[in-house]
Amino acid sequence: MWIPPSEEARDLLGLVEEIADGELTPPAAADHEARGEFPREIVRTLGRAGLLGLPYPAELGGAGQPYEVYLRVLERLAYRWLTVAEAVSVHTLSCYPAAVHGDDRLRKLVPDMIGGELLGAYCLSEPAGGSDAAALTTRAVRDGDHYVVDGTKAWITHAGSADFYTVFARTGEPGPRGISCLLLDATTTGLAPQPRERLMGLHAGAPAQVVLTGARVPADRLVGAEGQGFRIAMSALDAGRLGIAACAVGLAQAALDHAVAYARERTQFGSRIIDFQGIGFLLADAATGISAARALLYTAARLRDAGLPFSTEAAQAKLFATDTAMRVTTDAVQILGGAGYVTDHPVERWFREAKLLQIVEGTNQIQRLVIARSLAKP
Amino acid sequence: MWIPPSEEARDLLGLVEEIADGELTPPAAADHEARGEFPREIVRTLGRAGLLGLPYPAELGGAGQPYEVYLRVLERLAYRWLTVAEAVSVHTLSCYPAAVHGDDRLRKLVPDMIGGELLGAYCLSEPAGGSDAAALTTRAVRDGDHYVVDGTKAWITHAGSADFYTVFARTGEPGPRGISCLLLDATTTGLAPQPRERLMGLHAGAPAQVVLTGARVPADRLVGAEGQGFRIAMSALDAGRLGIAACAVGLAQAALDHAVAYARERTQFGSRIIDFQGIGFLLADAATGISAARALLYTAARLRDAGLPFSTEAAQAKLFATDTAMRVTTDAVQILGGAGYVTDHPVERWFREAKLLQIVEGTNQIQRLVIARSLAKP
Amino acid sequence: MWIPPSEEARDLLGLVEEIADGELTPPAAADHEARGEFPREIVRTLGRAGLLGLPYPAELGGAGQPYEVYLRVLERLAYRWLTVAEAVSVHTLSCYPAAVHGDDRLRKLVPDMIGGELLGAYCLSEPAGGSDAAALTTRAVRDGDHYVVDGTKAWITHAGSADFYTVFARTGEPGPRGISCLLLDATTTGLAPQPRERLMGLHAGAPAQVVLTGARVPADRLVGAEGQGFRIAMSALDAGRLGIAACAVGLAQAALDHAVAYARERTQFGSRIIDFQGIGFLLADAATGISAARALLYTAARLRDAGLPFSTEAAQAKLFATDTAMRVTTDAVQILGGAGYVTDHPVERWFREAKLLQIVEGTNQIQRLVIARSLAKP
Amino acid sequence: MWIPPSEEARDLLGLVEEIADGELTPPAAADHEARGEFPREIVRTLGRAGLLGLPYPAELGGAGQPYEVYLRVLERLAYRWLTVAEAVSVHTLSCYPAAVHGDDRLRKLVPDMIGGELLGAYCLSEPAGGSDAAALTTRAVRDGDHYVVDGTKAWITHAGSADFYTVFARTGEPGPRGISCLLLDATTTGLAPQPRERLMGLHAGAPAQVVLTGARVPADRLVGAEGQGFRIAMSALDAGRLGIAACAVGLAQAALDHAVAYARERTQFGSRIIDFQGIGFLLADAATGISAARALLYTAARLRDAGLPFSTEAAQAKLFATDTAMRVTTDAVQILGGAGYVTDHPVERWFREAKLLQIVEGTNQIQRLVIARSLAKP
Repeated sequence: MWIPPSEEARDLLGLVEEIADGELTPPAAADHEARGEFPREIVRTLGRAGLLGLPYPAELGGAGQPYEVYLRVLERLAYRWLTVAEAVSVHTLSCYPAAVHGDDRLRKLVPDMIGGELLGAYCLSEPAGGSDAAALTTRAVRDGDHYVVDGTKAWITHAGSADFYTVFARTGEPGPRGISCLLLDATTTGLAPQPRERLMGLHAGAPAQVVLTGARVPADRLVGAEGQGFRIAMSALDAGRLGIAACAVGLAQAALDHAVAYARERTQFGSRIIDFQGIGFLLADAATGISAARALLYTAARLRDAGLPFSTEAAQAKLFATDTAMRVTTDAVQILGGAGYVTDHPVERWFREAKLLQIVEGTNQIQRLVIARSLAKP
Repeated sequence: MWIPPSEEARDLLGLVEEIADGELTPPAAADHEARGEFPREIVRTLGRAGLLGLPYPAELGGAGQPYEVYLRVLERLAYRWLTVAEAVSVHTLSCYPAAVHGDDRLRKLVPDMIGGELLGAYCLSEPAGGSDAAALTTRAVRDGDHYVVDGTKAWITHAGSADFYTVFARTGEPGPRGISCLLLDATTTGLAPQPRERLMGLHAGAPAQVVLTGARVPADRLVGAEGQGFRIAMSALDAGRLGIAACAVGLAQAALDHAVAYARERTQFGSRIIDFQGIGFLLADAATGISAARALLYTAARLRDAGLPFSTEAAQAKLFATDTAMRVTTDAVQILGGAGYVTDHPVERWFREAKLLQIVEGTNQIQRLVIARSLAKP
Repeated sequence: MWIPPSEEARDLLGLVEEIADGELTPPAAADHEARGEFPREIVRTLGRAGLLGLPYPAELGGAGQPYEVYLRVLERLAYRWLTVAEAVSVHTLSCYPAAVHGDDRLRKLVPDMIGGELLGAYCLSEPAGGSDAAALTTRAVRDGDHYVVDGTKAWITHAGSADFYTVFARTGEPGPRGISCLLLDATTTGLAPQPRERLMGLHAGAPAQVVLTGARVPADRLVGAEGQGFRIAMSALDAGRLGIAACAVGLAQAALDHAVAYARERTQFGSRIIDFQGIGFLLADAATGISAARALLYTAARLRDAGLPFSTEAAQAKLFATDTAMRVTTDAVQILGGAGYVTDHPVERWFREAKLLQIVEGTNQIQRLVIARSLAKP
Repeated sequence: MWIPPSEEARDLLGLVEEIADGELTPPAAADHEARGEFPREIVRTLGRAGLLGLPYPAELGGAGQPYEVYLRVLERLAYRWLTVAEAVSVHTLSCYPAAVHGDDRLRKLVPDMIGGELLGAYCLSEPAGGSDAAALTTRAVRDGDHYVVDGTKAWITHAGSADFYTVFARTGEPGPRGISCLLLDATTTGLAPQPRERLMGLHAGAPAQVVLTGARVPADRLVGAEGQGFRIAMSALDAGRLGIAACAVGLAQAALDHAVAYARERTQFGSRIIDFQGIGFLLADAATGISAARALLYTAARLRDAGLPFSTEAAQAKLFATDTAMRVTTDAVQILGGAGYVTDHPVERWFREAKLLQIVEGTNQIQRLVIARSLAKP
């Protein structure tokens, strides 16, 4: 249901499919997930193929593609392997402050980030923070031509694998206006990634805490001005939400396709089970939900590409797509029955992964809050 | 969330808004609906403004607009007054067989249809038929250079107001391949519209049965060849389903906007009720559902405009948009409470009207069947 | 699924069925509803048969039945005709303050109330009040051995038909502790029922405003002490919520039974439509929802009958049963299709009536608030 | 919301709570589940305490309790540890054929089964069979005074731990009337439990296939007559469905209680999150769903205890309770956010376990089929 906006975009998607066929095979995914090993090499391959900087302009080493195309790439990656799509999404998010709000010096770092040589991590959340990002307590204190950063960041994807960390820390007053954004090298003394979380899903891409203890970062690694950090974080989040929505659509489509294939093969009481309306209608509702989620996602993306406001629509897309993915994966396991409940069966894995998408980049409750507030404004 | 595809389309929508502001005011709508009087003059006005033939080519008197633009017009009309949007939708559907499948002689009739001088009715359903259109029993028997038509058509919008009737009748064998399409003038002897149905909603646009008793229609009023009727009906239905989806989106948006306005004004326990998350989240879910429905609708429409297959997507759009409209209008009444339960209050009317949309142009069960079958195919 | 707790209860239900068969026939109901005429005589018949005071003790003229039995009677009445069930429910509620919190003098009035000679109205809501009952503004000022009452009550069932009005008015400070309960005769000078509301449903039982202008009521008509009114109103509301839940279960069962009967008769594509899983599963979900609602209702009732706390359970029963009734009646119309959308067809009427049940006796949002608060307490 | 029907029942529940406090502690459960080790000793403890034969008569060594009480015990066990509740449920089911349909010789074996010394397995499902139990292909061929059994049984709880296996095998014609029930000792030559399945949840109680190769079983181990096996299996299934419903209610309650406790503690934006209606209403809906499921479960159980038909109600209870458990556990993880997504966190485990309950003892699609058929009957 997605019509490429250009020949270039169509070619790009072809390239993605080709890499996916070669590198993101189900056995490769299952193997990494079972061992909980981050597929760093695959991300490098994607970077070299020019797929890590899709939405950024050519002068930063990007592909200058509409956001819509970038999201379609994410969707296709998530269709094969969520960890990889999530890696691309988080990496793209991590580049965003430097690429969009950085001064020339910072922007000079961007091509290497985008090329896949430097993997990024995005450090906003904190153990106590949750949905209330503006309450963050990690401090960055100016000391000569450095900032000294102390605090703990939580749920950091790529912690331990990343080459750079985009860190939000408090340089001033309490609340959103006291927050700044800093770019830290992974080699910074005092930046200590912790052991990775053991989670229900996304084992290969499991996050970890990052403890910062007197971590010194040169003052010219400040992105934008002091106090602009929260605004930067928030503007990146809208786009990040579309990224999660794209992951959810891809994941849900994978689950639906698997369930449909199974229901066409499996016979009970002498018929293919897909020919029972009880199964067929369930699949029809799943397909309809996915189509609606996908349409909403790319409609919101085209608003962004047209330079129009899209915050509310991004929140709607994230909410709707991830709720749909949870429902569709739950039903996909149901259609396979016991066969889909076996450890590391694809639909079993997708079901566990879908749950995460309802939580990250703002829980779906936060999305509803964002949407409700936009309605409440006169 | 809808970006016009051209300046012309933008202007057209402006014109629609202007007419809506002048003619489709809430009092005009409420008044006609309370009296159950079809607004024939308004349809004529729309025709003269060129709004009845939007998707048809200029040589037939149409505006040559993408289907997407036509649907957006329907949506905006339904936002104001469903009866008028439904009238435009049914009329456009009634013109479809002659305009698309008719020979030159029939196509010569199209400009007057499209201009609003000749209002059309679409006669497919029958009292016993329901969802099983291929089982229709109205017969058309060739008698020299005429067909003689006998049978009863049911749920015919514009019955009694229409100037022409697009009638599907059996000319051959049982089943879909024995059905043909004929164009009858309202003045045909033996064509007798019955008293209009008294329905829960859509009072001004209430349908009626049309009884055909030895109705003679010249053989050159056959649209396409004998036996092609069912195929014609089915191809028109896909587009018709998008029309109902557009009506549903407009209706749901009207209900949401009304509920939001109320919730911003109404205070309880010292706060605007929209500021209670219990209300705000309900509205957020409604807004999200509408956004998804609208995005799905226009995505399906763009498939049609691009000449791509869109049957499944049309069924999805009809299903999703009308289920959303039912849910949103139910919740809109809830938010207004007793105030929204008063006879002919707009939200009360929309709630009653929404239910119809889940039933017409193929019940939502039939839509699920269409979608399930497309999944079941290898 | 309801097992009578005693032989007496079984007999009582038999009596109710008998009266229902004789007096609450579909034509009688349809006729009154179409004309919007309150069936005062039927209520009198119920009173004479001892069915208006079921939960009250014998010394007050009641039947001393468990609340569970009273609710089952309500359910069966609502199965036939919601207006009558609602009348019994409102009347029982109107008697409650005098019967339970009244002094001996007031309790002497109760037998005539319960016998059906005196119909009651319950005057708590106000035009501006809505869910915030404690903010009511109707004032009762002591003047010698009378109270003088001024204000407007809204959504009063039986306004104009009632013989007595149980009125909540402010005698003291703002907030819940300044409210008192008074019993006014219908003949009181200054008590003026207004024309009845024109509502989407419940035409025969439509409420009206009651305007009180210098209405003088003897001070001995005070129920309980000054300032106890809110507490009295609240304690009655818990039981009243069970009453609405019982009405919702009966209404939903009626809609399901009608839809099932239709789906057994109606054939499409050569089969009874009930044999298509797409219809059968929809009906199965409806039946399951109704069974759960009924079980919840009587479980909550048995808590009350056992003298255990049941406020939260009553709120759950009201919420769940009325949401179920809305869903089931919406689906019942769907199953009948156009046939169920015709004015005053039973399922059409039930659909309109179900919406009211989600609103009255505390909107379903208020029920969620009650339940959430009980969870929030440590 | 459950009122014990007798003092004895109240004491019994007290005993269950006591054992649960001592043996079913969260660490014990988490430890066994992480290691996938079946808690055989705990089942023995329950047997010695008289908790394995609750619904069976005293002469068989049972407690002669109403089924309602047995189910309440299951619910409380599942509230602590699903594997143990499931073990009790499966064991009770395995005893059922011998206890109810067995001749005197077989019934003599029952006291040891019920006493917890002999653990049972219930062998109905087969790899290809799924929902179509009547199509089973395991054969039992009479050979002198033995049956020789060949085939493979799938999804067998307690395979490898059980002391006896209640096996359904084909002794005659295809279809339901050719099936018989046999009781096999675990020591039977040719009865080979396979390695346990690795599943998403219920690790400690994971099932396995049981391969039967020329397994000889004495002919007097036939339960009932030849050909009665399917009827026996079906009659046990109704009660088994109530068992799964009880497990689902207990599991859902555990998840809700955990989420409520968390939401009372956790603060965001300066408030306890339970005080945000967005969270509070979600919990209120969860609590309402659980209350309705529990009420439905015990209402169905009381029908069984009263000797009334309860098949449809059992299917409704299984369907509704397990769908509720899936929804509530999904929302419970949501409320905890990342904290609830960590491996082996209780809510993470319950979420995984809930999915299984929608599948076992007849998928929820099969339950809908059962209910729809009961509606379709005239």
